[in-house]
Order: sequence, then structure tokens, then C-alpha cells
Amino acid sequence: MVTIDDIRAAATRIRAFVVRTPLLPALWADAERPLWIKPESLQSIGAFKVRGAFNAIGNLDESVRTRGVVAYSSGNHAQAVAYAAAVYGIPAHIVMPKETPAVKVDATRDHGAEVVLCEAGQRERVAAEVVEETGGVLVPPFDHPDIIAGQGTIGLEIAEDMPSVENVLVPVSGGGLASGVGSAVKALCPQARVFGVEPELAADTAEGLEKGRRVDWSIEDRNRTIADGLRSQPSELTFAHLQQVLDGVITVSDSEIRDAVRELALKAHLVSEPSGAVALAAYRQGRTPPGRTVMVLSGGNIEPRALIDILG
Amino acid sequence: MVTIDDIRAAATRIRAFVVRTPLLPALWADAERPLWIKPESLQSIGAFKVRGAFNAIGNLDESVRTRGVVAYSSGNHAQAVAYAAAVYGIPAHIVMPKETPAVKVDATRDHGAEVVLCEAGQRERVAAEVVEETGGVLVPPFDHPDIIAGQGTIGLEIAEDMPSVENVLVPVSGGGLASGVGSAVKALCPQARVFGVEPELAADTAEGLEKGRRVDWSIEDRNRTIADGLRSQPSELTFAHLQQVLDGVITVSDSEIRDAVRELALKAHLVSEPSGAVALAAYRQGRTPPGRTVMVLSGGNIEPRALIDILG
Repeated sequence: MVTIDDIRAAATRIRAFVVRTPLLPALWADAERPLWIKPESLQSIGAFKVRGAFNAIGNLDESVRTRGVVAYSSGNHAQAVAYAAAVYGIPAHIVMPKETPAVKVDATRDHGAEVVLCEAGQRERVAAEVVEETGGVLVPPFDHPDIIAGQGTIGLEIAEDMPSVENVLVPVSGGGLASGVGSAVKALCPQARVFGVEPELAADTAEGLEKGRRVDWSIEDRNRTIADGLRSQPSELTFAHLQQVLDGVITVSDSEIRDAVRELALKAHLVSEPSGAVALAAYRQGRTPPGRTVMVLSGGNIEPRALIDILG
Repeated sequence: MVTIDDIRAAATRIRAFVVRTPLLPALWADAERPLWIKPESLQSIGAFKVRGAFNAIGNLDESVRTRGVVAYSSGNHAQAVAYAAAVYGIPAHIVMPKETPAVKVDATRDHGAEVVLCEAGQRERVAAEVVEETGGVLVPPFDHPDIIAGQGTIGLEIAEDMPSVENVLVPVSGGGLASGVGSAVKALCPQARVFGVEPELAADTAEGLEKGRRVDWSIEDRNRTIADGLRSQPSELTFAHLQQVLDGVITVSDSEIRDAVRELALKAHLVSEPSGAVALAAYRQGRTPPGRTVMVLSGGNIEPRALIDILG
């Protein structure tokens, strides 16, 4: 299991490369549940994923690192690994499904990565082939202690900036972010409750934690939600962390997610992607306990048309 | 003239009440002019004005402060003074023109301030009457050393976070922000150039600095620009600072301002008001010198319809 020492080491390793995001007070929130936003949408690639990517790549032996890295992702992890590899001056191969929007493929190439397009559902297999061919190291999106520790630096910063925090709301998908944030917060602020947040339409973790074991939702089911960054499921490693550090999982509807995106833009002046706004959607349900609450806004990479549609 | 010591004292005075905003790297900017954004839109009321308001109110003798404060503003200064007064637990009277949008009047009242509506062009006279009646202290929007020093804390933070900064771009209207930022940057980073940015349609400071004296543009002329927070003109005090600290003023068209608002939303994930985006509009003209560039994004309080219109 990832420890607070791992997370502190990650913080030192990534400090020069990531934005230390502030806690932003939301004056428009409920008086008895004062709210602060941790805006990871302000990282250079628009999402928290740079933290795990820089920690994983930074923690490689230099002789290994110079062979380059490989990742599979259609989303923010692709850009995070591509960007971190560029900063380290090493090659990156990113495997993306053919149906990935061109804007995301281009953004990944703009960081200097080589994009390998593959058939839907084949990306893990193709990534393994690329590892075999290039000798590069696979940087997984969440199923690795270095990724969990890197994302955990968000929790470390929350604990440093607000030791008296009482509730933390964090999105759950593959579980790297929630595992890391929860591990840091529980270690440093044992009084705090940590709630994961999931779309109702991809609520495998809510069901799994209730049953005490991982459950499998079909990818067709999970693909229904507007929150396209929250369609993964925990691994054994992340699920074990979530069982240990989460006080519960709150599920939110797609309609609630849209309202949260709108509120973040108009009241907090922050552009969020649907996946990034779920913690506010959970807060707005009004059922979290009273007390000082921090929500993690995990990313801001939304398509312009989707943003206009939600604001209109 | 406001000194770096005044600005350091202001920083200490307001530390507990304002967000220490980070410098956000803009990876999408020109390689030879790397760009960082100082996002003051993330202050609790959505604009930098809280810095000056907290410094001015915090620097009053307590016996004076308890009598309350008075301000005139239809914009961000109104909310800043109302919010700072609420935090200090003192009464606030805010004089606003009758034509102020209801949303801004309501936001000011939500902080507990008493709003006094007045005829257009009468707000300074009415504010003086309210001072007479209530014994409160007038907190001017820019024409005061404590306001300049408070806004100057932005420049202090830029210098702390990036001592090697080479260009700073900052909006100019009444000149409190540019005076303060310029004073701090010039004191701590003498190698840096500081450029004011104005709408072409309200470019009295560009003209005035060229002529070496303040010039007066009619309010009808200045009201033409979409940048409704940049329609004021410097006072003698701020103009004297601007003459000393600015290396030039760049003017931008309303069309360029709209493009900048759009780019900030879609690439930096930051919602800005037109006035808040002018520094990016200036940067996008491509005529500032090479080198590490910081732009001040001064505020994010844009009407939802205007934001949708600009994004669409």
C-alpha cells in the first residue's frame, strides 16, 4: 500500500513540474458546509494526471527512463505522459483508439509524442506490443504505486493548507486519484471524511465497496455517462486502497453533473470537464455532513461545443 | 509615491483574506515568449479588487473602522468592499448607479452591504453625502496609496515566484492595479519591462503618457468598449505612478478582447470578463519583446449571455 512517505517523496520529485494549486473559497456555498475548490484543471495540460505521470517517470532509473515511455489513453493521461516525457527529453509512444477526437490526438502529438492508433478495445494489447518493440516503460493510467503517490500529492497539499478539513470530495474512476488523495488525507487529517464521487451511470465502485469486492460493469453501460473521464474501473491495487480510505461513495446523475459544470463556470470562474465537476454535483445534493469541505476539481478539458451547450 | 515597503506591509495585512494565486504556465503560447497567467479571477469575489479593499480597510485605526465604510462602484470594487467589510464585521454603504444590473446589486447586498442607488453621474456626490451622514470612511476604487499598495501585492507575488520575469502585462483603467504591480515589479525585478494594456476605445492613458500629461476622454467615448471595467481614467496619484513604472501602453480592439476571453476559457480553463482578458489580447498581437512574460488576468465576472456569445 502507498504510504504518506511515498506521497511526500512524490511531492519533492514533481515540485518543479506541476502547479501547486491553491484552495479557492466558494463564498456562494452553504454556510454550514463551507466549501473550497482544489482546481486541478489549472495544471498545464488541464488535469491532475501530470502529477502521477511526472512521479512515475521521475522515479525511473535514468538508464531505464532514456529508453522512453509508453501509455494507452484517449484522455488526459495521454497528454500528461506526453508532456512529462517531453520535459524529461525522452521518447513517448501513446496508444489511442482510432475513434479518439482529432483534437486530443493533435494535442498529444503537439507535445512531441508518437501516437499509435488502434482498434477499440485493443489498446492494452497494442501498448504491450509497443513496449516489446521499443523497450520503453509502460506508464499505466492508475494501476501503479507511483501513479497513486503522485495523485496523492493533491491530498498532501490539502492537508498542508487546511489541517482542519472535515470533508473531502474526490472523483472515482480507475481509483488512482481517490486512492492517493484519501491515503494522504487519512494519514495527516484523521478527523476528515473522504467521499468518492461517481456518475450513477458508471457506479461500479459504489456497488463494489458495498459488496466488499470489485464488481464489473460492462463498458457499454459505463460509456453512457457524459463524464468520459470516469468510465474506468479500479484495479485490485486501487480497490484495496479505496476500501481502506473512503468513507463512502456518492453517485450523481448526468443532469447534476451538467449543473455543476455550469455553476463552476459562472460562480467560480473555472472551466471544468464533466468528469472534473462531479464532486460539486455531490456537494450540491446537500447530503454531505456539515463542516469544512474541500472538493477536487480534477480537470478542465471539455469540448467547446459541450461547454456552450451546458452554459446555454 | 507607494514604496515596496508599503506593498510588503500590505501583503502581510491581507494574507489571511486573499488567495495567493499561482503563476499558471500557458503551454500553448509562443516558444520565444513563454507565458504565465496570474489568475486574479480566482479571488473569492472574482477579481483582484479584494486586495486593495482589504488593505485599505485593514489599515484603518480600529476606532475609525468601526464606523463603517462607504464606496461607489457598479463593478468589482463594490463587491470587494462589501465582502471585506463583512469579514471585518463593520457596516458598508455602497453607492451604485440605478442602471447597474440587478445581479451585481444583489451580489453586493448578499455580502450584507447597504446599497444606495443613485442617478447616473451622481455617485461621487452621493457617496460624499453618505460619508457625511454615517461617519463612515470612503474607500476609493483606485485613488489612494493603500489601494495601490494592496493591488501591488500581485506584483510582489510575481517577483517572488519568478524573479527572472522579463515582461509583465497588466490592464490599465483608473490605474491602481498597474501602479501597484509596476511599482513592485520595478523595485524587485529591475530588468523587467511592464506594459499597461488598454482598450482602443478607452485609450486615454496611452495618449496621456505619450503627451506627458493626463488627457480626458468623454465618458460617452470610454463607454463604447466591451471592457466595462476599463472605462475609468487615472487620477493625479496613479498617473504619476504610471509615468514612473510603465514601459509603454498597448491598446487592443474589442474584437481582440473577445478572442482572448475565448482562448482563456478553452485553453487555460479560466473564465474571464472582457476587462480581465486584455493582457492576453495584447500578448496575442505578437509585438511584445521576447522573454518570460507574465500576464495579469484581473477578473472573471462576466454575464452568462456574454460568455456564451463569445464562445459560440
